[in-house]
Amino acid sequence: MRALIWDGERLRFVADAPAPSVVDGTVLVRVRLAGICSTDLQILRGYMGFRGILGHEVVGEVVTGDASLAGRRVVAEINFACRRCADCRAGRERHCAARSVMGILDADGAFAELLRVPIANLHAVPDDVPDRHAVFAEPLAAAFRAAEQTAHLEGGRSLVIGAGKLGLLVAQVLAARGDVVAVVTRNARARAVVAELGLEPLDARPAARSFDLVVEASGSADGLAEAVACVRPLGAIVLKTTVAARHDVDLAPLVINEVTVIGSRCGPFPPALAALRAESVRVEPLIDAELPLEDGIAALERAGRPGALKVLLRPA
Amino acid sequence: MRALIWDGERLRFVADAPAPSVVDGTVLVRVRLAGICSTDLQILRGYMGFRGILGHEVVGEVVTGDASLAGRRVVAEINFACRRCADCRAGRERHCAARSVMGILDADGAFAELLRVPIANLHAVPDDVPDRHAVFAEPLAAAFRAAEQTAHLEGGRSLVIGAGKLGLLVAQVLAARGDVVAVVTRNARARAVVAELGLEPLDARPAARSFDLVVEASGSADGLAEAVACVRPLGAIVLKTTVAARHDVDLAPLVINEVTVIGSRCGPFPPALAALRAESVRVEPLIDAELPLEDGIAALERAGRPGALKVLLRPA
Repeated sequence: MRALIWDGERLRFVADAPAPSVVDGTVLVRVRLAGICSTDLQILRGYMGFRGILGHEVVGEVVTGDASLAGRRVVAEINFACRRCADCRAGRERHCAARSVMGILDADGAFAELLRVPIANLHAVPDDVPDRHAVFAEPLAAAFRAAEQTAHLEGGRSLVIGAGKLGLLVAQVLAARGDVVAVVTRNARARAVVAELGLEPLDARPAARSFDLVVEASGSADGLAEAVACVRPLGAIVLKTTVAARHDVDLAPLVINEVTVIGSRCGPFPPALAALRAESVRVEPLIDAELPLEDGIAALERAGRPGALKVLLRPA
Repeated sequence: MRALIWDGERLRFVADAPAPSVVDGTVLVRVRLAGICSTDLQILRGYMGFRGILGHEVVGEVVTGDASLAGRRVVAEINFACRRCADCRAGRERHCAARSVMGILDADGAFAELLRVPIANLHAVPDDVPDRHAVFAEPLAAAFRAAEQTAHLEGGRSLVIGAGKLGLLVAQVLAARGDVVAVVTRNARARAVVAELGLEPLDARPAARSFDLVVEASGSADGLAEAVACVRPLGAIVLKTTVAARHDVDLAPLVINEVTVIGSRCGPFPPALAALRAESVRVEPLIDAELPLEDGIAALERAGRPGALKVLLRPA
């Protein structure tokens, strides 16, 4: 099959990669559309030490492995848990220490024609959600996770730092629940998208201590310091990006102002699919380009440009 | 009056400092006993840029300013709020941006014969709580704050990093609510105190990902990195000390493991006084020495030695 493979040094498009085999409890999914995430770009810079087929945002259809699922259009959660360890038994499957993660850790991903996924990770896609929207289920679920972790601040003043793909999803989810949302970014094109989505674009750091919630989604090493400056006492900061860099941080303001910093990763798929169906979160303005898998190397380069939004890959 | 004054360069014992005047809404308190906190030692290294009379842990008796309070034995909350601003009206008086803080920010403290305190900040001390215990009300309230902020983890496995004065109070409060508590410290004498208090002493970092809650109370710049290593996914880290140093931190594990980091400062006095009365928290083993105010400079030096516990100052 065709696939985009990272060997730790070079990204290659391969026309004859071996197709994955089906094992118990899994199915093969024929990829219809896959999305490029900033995490993919970080992996190319060494994050997680991953080797294999990249890609963890996907919509596809089940082709083999379970007769009752055959032909179903699906999206897939990316954490493949062991479902036996203490974390799994405590309901923390997404944090299973023995997990593999699609296209990120010990499991091949979705930049290929075929993908193996545990059945337990699948969610059926409603017929009226097109592929171009369904492929956002995974990052949108991650955006809903930020809302789930800050339910106590619902309806407050929220700031999203960074108007990248994930920042724009988080901002829309928070606005949809009733927060007054501003998005700060130095990129003029991104500010135009923010305005188009009905949110308040800011081009410079807003007043200190003025936000109940600040979501750091800039992927920049100084994003945390900026968040600390903007959040009000007893407010919360959600860290939404894993930056492959160390942070030099003065923690005293966190303690003095009793700020809570919440790490946030993967989230629940059902509200994401519901929002895509209801179009309460708009993803069409977030699509930068849709390219064939053969052009994957150029597509990842494009996704890495400043201000780039979502680049989609179509294997077929 | 006699007082211990920090001028930004030198700590001096002064026999003839001017007594504070009473203003509306305040009383004068004759200090019976004051405690030395690590924050006092940090102020001597430049923290907060404070100038004036140090000290914010105090038990005393009301001498002037309100007839109904005269002669009452009291302890005092340290944040003097304006009670008019948006933070105060939202119930966040301890975070009033216009506040002064006893012995820390724009208000003289308790290392003196007399201390001016807003009436709203006073709490009466039950007759059966001796001065040597009542003087712990402020740091014990701060320990209760850590418990209040982590109520969802009650009864779990908790680790306190650092067996200093505050760490030993936090550890006891967590144990009293039902947590299984270990305390890690490199200081052998401190480990003996931990054991005497019925808690588990550890001399080296415990297994990774093994604690529901980790309280960083070491005052060390690498305490956060150690806490990140010990906490389980979806667990919490409470930052209990303001270290006058910058931290070089890899935040990726916080995000991947969705850890919550909670800044924690001052806390509620009523549960602290109740615990002192019930002796559910033991403070006698935490007392290192009780010295007259005249020996204040030596007392602060003593409080700064590795493994030192609470040094008390008696003005009279």
